[in-house]
Amino acid sequence: MSSGPRTYRLGEIVARLGGELIGGQDPEIRRIATLENAEPGDLSFVANPRYLKQLNGTRASAVILARGQRGATQLPRIVCDDPYAYYARAAQLLNPEPQVAPGIHARAVVEAGAEVAPSAAVGPFCHVARGARIDERVVLGPGCAVGEEAQIGEDSRLGPSVTVYPRSVIGKRAVIHAGAVIGADGFGIAPQGGRWIKIPQTGRVVIGDDVEVGANTTIDRGALDDTVIEDGVKLDNQIQIAHNVRVGAHTAIAAFAGIAGSARIGRHCAIGGAARIMGHIEIADGVIVTATSFVTKSIRSAGTYSSVLPAEPAQEWAKTVAQLRGLERLAGRVRELEGHPKPRKRKGKR
Amino acid sequence: MSSGPRTYRLGEIVARLGGELIGGQDPEIRRIATLENAEPGDLSFVANPRYLKQLNGTRASAVILARGQRGATQLPRIVCDDPYAYYARAAQLLNPEPQVAPGIHARAVVEAGAEVAPSAAVGPFCHVARGARIDERVVLGPGCAVGEEAQIGEDSRLGPSVTVYPRSVIGKRAVIHAGAVIGADGFGIAPQGGRWIKIPQTGRVVIGDDVEVGANTTIDRGALDDTVIEDGVKLDNQIQIAHNVRVGAHTAIAAFAGIAGSARIGRHCAIGGAARIMGHIEIADGVIVTATSFVTKSIRSAGTYSSVLPAEPAQEWAKTVAQLRGLERLAGRVRELEGHPKPRKRKGKR
Amino acid sequence: MSSGPRTYRLGEIVARLGGELIGGQDPEIRRIATLENAEPGDLSFVANPRYLKQLNGTRASAVILARGQRGATQLPRIVCDDPYAYYARAAQLLNPEPQVAPGIHARAVVEAGAEVAPSAAVGPFCHVARGARIDERVVLGPGCAVGEEAQIGEDSRLGPSVTVYPRSVIGKRAVIHAGAVIGADGFGIAPQGGRWIKIPQTGRVVIGDDVEVGANTTIDRGALDDTVIEDGVKLDNQIQIAHNVRVGAHTAIAAFAGIAGSARIGRHCAIGGAARIMGHIEIADGVIVTATSFVTKSIRSAGTYSSVLPAEPAQEWAKTVAQLRGLERLAGRVRELEGHPKPRKRKGKR
Repeated sequence: MSSGPRTYRLGEIVARLGGELIGGQDPEIRRIATLENAEPGDLSFVANPRYLKQLNGTRASAVILARGQRGATQLPRIVCDDPYAYYARAAQLLNPEPQVAPGIHARAVVEAGAEVAPSAAVGPFCHVARGARIDERVVLGPGCAVGEEAQIGEDSRLGPSVTVYPRSVIGKRAVIHAGAVIGADGFGIAPQGGRWIKIPQTGRVVIGDDVEVGANTTIDRGALDDTVIEDGVKLDNQIQIAHNVRVGAHTAIAAFAGIAGSARIGRHCAIGGAARIMGHIEIADGVIVTATSFVTKSIRSAGTYSSVLPAEPAQEWAKTVAQLRGLERLAGRVRELEGHPKPRKRKGKR
Repeated sequence: MSSGPRTYRLGEIVARLGGELIGGQDPEIRRIATLENAEPGDLSFVANPRYLKQLNGTRASAVILARGQRGATQLPRIVCDDPYAYYARAAQLLNPEPQVAPGIHARAVVEAGAEVAPSAAVGPFCHVARGARIDERVVLGPGCAVGEEAQIGEDSRLGPSVTVYPRSVIGKRAVIHAGAVIGADGFGIAPQGGRWIKIPQTGRVVIGDDVEVGANTTIDRGALDDTVIEDGVKLDNQIQIAHNVRVGAHTAIAAFAGIAGSARIGRHCAIGGAARIMGHIEIADGVIVTATSFVTKSIRSAGTYSSVLPAEPAQEWAKTVAQLRGLERLAGRVRELEGHPKPRKRKGKR
Repeated sequence: MSSGPRTYRLGEIVARLGGELIGGQDPEIRRIATLENAEPGDLSFVANPRYLKQLNGTRASAVILARGQRGATQLPRIVCDDPYAYYARAAQLLNPEPQVAPGIHARAVVEAGAEVAPSAAVGPFCHVARGARIDERVVLGPGCAVGEEAQIGEDSRLGPSVTVYPRSVIGKRAVIHAGAVIGADGFGIAPQGGRWIKIPQTGRVVIGDDVEVGANTTIDRGALDDTVIEDGVKLDNQIQIAHNVRVGAHTAIAAFAGIAGSARIGRHCAIGGAARIMGHIEIADGVIVTATSFVTKSIRSAGTYSSVLPAEPAQEWAKTVAQLRGLERLAGRVRELEGHPKPRKRKGKR
């Protein structure tokens, strides 16, 4: 690898990314940094008004601000509509992806009948099986395994020890972090006579363009049809996507979320960390599921859904749980206080 | 690898797997497919009466039906007791495991003193340590590490980048998916003087026959005694099995489930996704734990156990949580309404 | 590798680790074992009075006991303050880490400009990138990837297929199990126009001394500042530590726990399995979070915190959930019984 970070004049950044430059100076910018830890040469930003007070003490050479906060400092500053998105794009400018020398490492194994584009870089200890296709400027980190007839689209980057099972399809500009497993068998088993019969998983994983997949995340291949991850989906670490799931375009899913088999997640959803989605249900576009919540039924309209239980001091919590268990009895007592007779016991219980 | 899918006449399938052939034709079958996506040459199935209505529009060449549904279509059909199990076995027939050429890849390292059966296939970048034993027809995908004195039984298949730590024992016909880690140290630490002392984990992992282990699942070695996975257990992806756990035969465990140290799970259990089992407890045979539930005490009899909280619209849910916190107070108010005096405050609280 | 377990006379163990030797014999000790499974030559221990009754039947040659239990057996015994910690240290004595022959395996790739100490052992299929530093007596298992300018401190041991991303810093005496991923990108994305922009993650992971990291655990690099794991932290398997988290010294975290971005965990905390910590909050020193609990707010004082829901028979649980949903209505009925008028409906609901 080579290259890495580079520097820009503040004015060059504005010329490329837009926004309004205020403050009469044009410092050279080396890095983005938080207000708290910035040093001279750093560009900082205020994405949340809560941090405005840190402007006072910062050593940053310049700062990105929202339009309404243009007067909040005398530092050289970029004023824009969305400081957080501006920060993201400025950080991309200052931190271009490292250039990787193209070619197949002498310690990689590319089987006959695999196609590797000349501008792609296949790292040491990678195995690319027969019929696989690695497109232009793809980078495979050390120790990746790409199965038979799998495809990886141009400009995609795989971290170390990523597994892409046979026939999986990955689109363009994917970023896939270490240890992710794309296309392992779904959990397909049928009971027979007290044992489990394995159901061959013959579908594929099909991943669109501009998708990110976090470290040690697993996306299973379909049982018969495909598991589909649409364009622009962002998956954090250690997520599990079961067979035949479809995740709609531009949905973001945080770490540890689990999507059970054949669930369909809409577009532009946000699924919180360790949230769970039951199998065979549908979630509309624009749904937010809070972290750790468990969605057990289809959700038909956009909005925020939750079943979060916030932790409390354990002694308090133990009392709540005890009450919870007595809740049916408590409701019965309220019915009696209201003058209703005790409900008759159901037949099955006699 | 070679081979892959093959084709059968419908009558050949019935000759091998049983069932009753109806419909007077004997089409050639290439694939199994869902009713919805089937094309000519495909065999489909109805495992759930809910899908019977899709029989109308399907393009499948034949279909597998339950006995009671023999008249539900005019298509060539196989009538049997359990269409889902039949589908599983027909899919196995049509999708035999790919044949892998035996031998040790030139880019693998097999240490002196390891035994690799002549019919086994050791992929590139595998490391097989001293004293390890790889039995007949075992397939190791690229980049597996098999530690000292570990054993892998005949016909087992390991995906890419599987780690088998020293002295682990894996039975026959195992299927272990990419990134699984068998036999890493259990989480054994003892507090002393405000620090943690590591407790060497000297037990093993012992896995029976016909076990499947999902991608990135981890099974820790025992602290002193062994961690044991009995015959026929099926483990999905990203499961954590802690040290000294025993999982009974033919139990199935879904993704993200976690079994804490020294828990004993019975035979023929079904543990749902992201369910948690507390350490040092016992679960009887035939127990079903619903997804995301947390089992905190031993379960002595078969049945279904749950602590699922279904997600609701977040505003509704917030009210429920607020009420939950006031539950003890509410119960006190009901007591008063019933004419009981307020409970005396406990001494410790004065 | 070589060496492995060795034997000691009971008296030698006491000479090295302290405690009082009782029983007038000095048997040779080969192993530590549980009371139940011990054989002659084994040293066992009673860490929990509950197991005292197993002393009767044990075949152990000697046993470790707490001071108050010195008379509980006639076996040769070591009496000490803390039998569990003593067991840990005796087990370390009997099971020294295997010696690994130093040197870079012929099948490893160490790039020009990487520094590997002469006493370090780099396993086959490891890739050590330019500018990386591997200190004295470090052991890298097969298939590890160490990125540019990453550092691994002396006496650290990495299992197979561990990934250390560029510029990550790992202290001395770390134990990192297979499949762990240190320093992958944090989940940094900014919304813009219905799409997600990736925010380059330019911070590092900095891990102190004496840290253990479980199999398939992931620790993300910081967005701008660093993610920090302080000295003596013990992490179990499949944990997710997000960007910019700080975990205080000597905190232990069990499997599947997830710490969201920028959370700060204190020193000497114990975080249970599958517990979740919300982002951007602070947890004081000495806090215990029970398994599966979700901490949503900062915790300012030591103590135990919980939101555990124990599983119950599913039929009972279903009734509880139904009541839970009616809780607000139930509270309203109690208010009416108490003679309060119905609360006016809020404007927005009319």
